[in-house]
Amino acid sequence: MRIINQLSGRRIFLKAAATVASGITGLSLLPSLGFSQPLTESPRSFSGDEALRSLPPGKDFRPVAEDKNLGIIGPREGYSPQIGTLVSMMAFMRSQVINSTKGMTMEQLDFLLDDKANTIGAMLYHLAATDAFYHEHTFKGVEWGKWDAAVQKKFGVAMELGDEGRKAIKGNNLDFYLNLLQETRENTLAEFRKRDDKWMMIVDKDWGWNNYCKWFHVCEHEGNHNGQIKLLKSRLPGAKSVKE
Amino acid sequence: MRIINQLSGRRIFLKAAATVASGITGLSLLPSLGFSQPLTESPRSFSGDEALRSLPPGKDFRPVAEDKNLGIIGPREGYSPQIGTLVSMMAFMRSQVINSTKGMTMEQLDFLLDDKANTIGAMLYHLAATDAFYHEHTFKGVEWGKWDAAVQKKFGVAMELGDEGRKAIKGNNLDFYLNLLQETRENTLAEFRKRDDKWMMIVDKDWGWNNYCKWFHVCEHEGNHNGQIKLLKSRLPGAKSVKE
Repeated sequence: MRIINQLSGRRIFLKAAATVASGITGLSLLPSLGFSQPLTESPRSFSGDEALRSLPPGKDFRPVAEDKNLGIIGPREGYSPQIGTLVSMMAFMRSQVINSTKGMTMEQLDFLLDDKANTIGAMLYHLAATDAFYHEHTFKGVEWGKWDAAVQKKFGVAMELGDEGRKAIKGNNLDFYLNLLQETRENTLAEFRKRDDKWMMIVDKDWGWNNYCKWFHVCEHEGNHNGQIKLLKSRLPGAKSVKE
Repeated sequence: MRIINQLSGRRIFLKAAATVASGITGLSLLPSLGFSQPLTESPRSFSGDEALRSLPPGKDFRPVAEDKNLGIIGPREGYSPQIGTLVSMMAFMRSQVINSTKGMTMEQLDFLLDDKANTIGAMLYHLAATDAFYHEHTFKGVEWGKWDAAVQKKFGVAMELGDEGRKAIKGNNLDFYLNLLQETRENTLAEFRKRDDKWMMIVDKDWGWNNYCKWFHVCEHEGNHNGQIKLLKSRLPGAKSVKE
């Protein structure tokens, strides 16, 4: 069982979501809180997985299992230390996206704020596309933009968003997007397990970025769009404000 | 000279911004690109700091100087390995926020999308407040919400945002916010330099988060709001769309 399986297994997801939410009341993972109270309330006692409590201070950077411990950023079993640390960050970010979109209907996923806007559904597809393109680029060495036809066909529009995205990406339910997110992330994690920290530090001279930077960008890019998803969520017809 | 000094020194900032922008054409750090083309164009050749080119693959995790190498995520001189890696991520994120808001006028910083919205200025203040409160909480051990009166007075409204923020945070120019961001981040980095990786793994049992998670949250929280800033930027009166 891996963290990413929260995308496919309702029970697994709910467990993970409860683990996160209970530990961070008042923080940005809990969109049910009032919009006016970001990051400020006293956290309630943690009531989630006891494994989180059992990791004593001082046991620094002992790899922990991948299927729990969302609040423990650090190495993960099955990965090199720095890759595992990034994997823990990616799982933390992904849990926020899943939490932000939980229970959304097709109509909500297709909501357009205005004629410049992207839908929440299109942004979810876009996040999956980002994983897929960085996978092709960093693991297979494909030059950016020179994608195989099948990859381009499946993810090209979602990567571009904009007018084409508004036309083409609609009418899908939440599971459609969650499955794409799961599939692309699983593929990414499978490749990460084959690599080591030296690989993370290889610099692409054309970009001026190392592989760590490219994949950290994929990670923080989810934060970027999660912020937008929360902003749009507050403006869905009939919506209550959520903390943005 | 430290990365954060890009906040105070125009020349330093422009150098850093050019370094980043030139390496990531088509990626999310270059808001002048069309809204419809996120993360998709072929990156142009990197024309920035030659130090980035000179780091050979295989020299993994040799700490690099703090004042350059924005595209190299990894250890930084003067910090323990994991803290330095997080510092490099925080600098990468901060450069995006600075890039997103570059040249904004007071009127643009005070723009309200609707009666639920936060201004871009308020979000910048909020990011500084986040640094300040996590500083009090993790470095000084202050329980969340039990802030010293002076800290509460300076940052409380910005942390809350919402109605109070809309009333109180306005009429400031960009430098006002950048100075707050610089001041709080400098204070954070000064404390990071005194700590080690063991400290990062200490778990707050009430939260279920280790210190690494708390500060990673501060980092990705900038991505969250940067996404919102870019969305708002496209909707400023007279604005062209920017890649969101």
